[in-house]
Amino acid sequence: MHRYYLGIDLGGTVIKIDIVSNNGHIVEQLAFNNDDHCPETVVSKIASHYKALTAKLSLSGTGIGVAGDIDQTNGIVRFSPNLGWKNLPLRKMLEKHLPHPIKMDNDANAAAWGAYWLESKASVKNMVCVTLGTGVGGGIICCGDLLHGATGTAGEIGHMTLDPEGPRCNCGNNGCIERYVGAQYLCDNARERILRGEKSHISALVNGDFSAITPEIITIAAKGGDELAKDIWRDAGVRLGIMFASIINALNPEMIVLAGGVSKSGGLIMKPIKDTVRKRAFKTPAEACKIVFARNTQQLGVAGAALLAAR
Amino acid sequence: MHRYYLGIDLGGTVIKIDIVSNNGHIVEQLAFNNDDHCPETVVSKIASHYKALTAKLSLSGTGIGVAGDIDQTNGIVRFSPNLGWKNLPLRKMLEKHLPHPIKMDNDANAAAWGAYWLESKASVKNMVCVTLGTGVGGGIICCGDLLHGATGTAGEIGHMTLDPEGPRCNCGNNGCIERYVGAQYLCDNARERILRGEKSHISALVNGDFSAITPEIITIAAKGGDELAKDIWRDAGVRLGIMFASIINALNPEMIVLAGGVSKSGGLIMKPIKDTVRKRAFKTPAEACKIVFARNTQQLGVAGAALLAAR
Repeated sequence: MHRYYLGIDLGGTVIKIDIVSNNGHIVEQLAFNNDDHCPETVVSKIASHYKALTAKLSLSGTGIGVAGDIDQTNGIVRFSPNLGWKNLPLRKMLEKHLPHPIKMDNDANAAAWGAYWLESKASVKNMVCVTLGTGVGGGIICCGDLLHGATGTAGEIGHMTLDPEGPRCNCGNNGCIERYVGAQYLCDNARERILRGEKSHISALVNGDFSAITPEIITIAAKGGDELAKDIWRDAGVRLGIMFASIINALNPEMIVLAGGVSKSGGLIMKPIKDTVRKRAFKTPAEACKIVFARNTQQLGVAGAALLAAR
Repeated sequence: MHRYYLGIDLGGTVIKIDIVSNNGHIVEQLAFNNDDHCPETVVSKIASHYKALTAKLSLSGTGIGVAGDIDQTNGIVRFSPNLGWKNLPLRKMLEKHLPHPIKMDNDANAAAWGAYWLESKASVKNMVCVTLGTGVGGGIICCGDLLHGATGTAGEIGHMTLDPEGPRCNCGNNGCIERYVGAQYLCDNARERILRGEKSHISALVNGDFSAITPEIITIAAKGGDELAKDIWRDAGVRLGIMFASIINALNPEMIVLAGGVSKSGGLIMKPIKDTVRKRAFKTPAEACKIVFARNTQQLGVAGAALLAAR
């Protein structure tokens, strides 16, 4: 018999809600704006959706992924810059309205857990999920379970050092991989190179408004044959490949899943990733590691949250 | 009631044998030369020691750590450059003489498992053990168990990339951490700097024979106030600290254990490691991670091998 779980992906602009069966099948999806970050408002919105959903289905648990630093054990949002929350006992607040076990985690871990179920169907034991967006999020599955580490902060792949002498990262370190392959960096890089005189169709695509450059625009240009745009994806791929080679040597995962809008760039980034891994990682673990784009990138976080409750 | 396990650390020059109780207490130790690498000779030597030991104590299992690439599942030494072995079914060969379960792993994993029991008394859930010697070995404990990964090669910390543009490593990659903090590199670095004209007591300590420089000599010079020697340890500490910061952000371990003769250098290497971690890693996981020297560095591999059998 199937059991059903409620998944919530709590982001700064959108709240996604799913109902997922214990075998990873998504049976219901909805999303609504999260414009008012007042904690009581957010909780009451979730509670009213919960009421409407339970009228249709009996739910066995809730999982919630929150953008930020999460204390999973105590259900506290230690810090969420996106939501403006600090030391918020969110689980306690939700428990008043949702009368079943609630699991909480950060959104990148929820996405990794979602990738484990939706992308690998739990067929592997060790997986790393990397989400490329404004930042570079990560989550690690070891021996079939989500790795939390000592303080619940494991999985911060984006803040592994790629170049110790590299540019300053928001986290205080220098040369984090996020500083090279985060969306903002890719766009800044394109703009700076164009301003330095390199020719590119990107200028025309944004009508000269360089603040309008997005990774999607760079992909469109690259697919049209633009050399600068292709080089930006190639560079990102090589850098990710260097990082993945380190991860493969250290963790020997069966699978690395690349999530986020980046999948639209396809082989532009995937080919240099794979070429670089082949060149740099040990042969045996490199051959054993499938590197793939997530096919369900939009659902990983919310479905993963639901599946945390089934964990 | 205690159960007792046989541990074997099979290195290129010495074979160590221990008997360890299931609570990690070492009750018997011996070591003998491994000058003849003929597999049958090695196996018969182990078998005769086993016979002598079982005359005194009843043993419940054997664990063996081998320097090289090991297929733990099938008990095969895939490749051991130190022993000159390739695809050797060592477990099968041993099973003819040792009539109880035999676990096999590589020596760095065995040392990590030993560190988990001897250094942390299994009080933590996540630990990384790094052995500094000619190479840089590593083993990872996740969620209270040894991480093997897809092909049993997990834990190759020494071949994580520190500088993508760095010098070529034996493994084929560029800029592996091993290329900066392995014993050979430390000694080469001292020699080259002296030949370039830097002043150092090291020259006198080796009577001008630069091939006699060892990490121990560098430590003696550094403890005598030699600036170049101090700088070599400082540099190694900073580089290890950069790597540890990445590991702390990614894996969030409660403990990193540094094993090998390096512990003799004490604060010379430990201070820059800790300073660098504090500067580069996320605050919460950095504060939660104890970085320590192994107190039982000589026993980690062999005791860890025995405890693999109790795993």
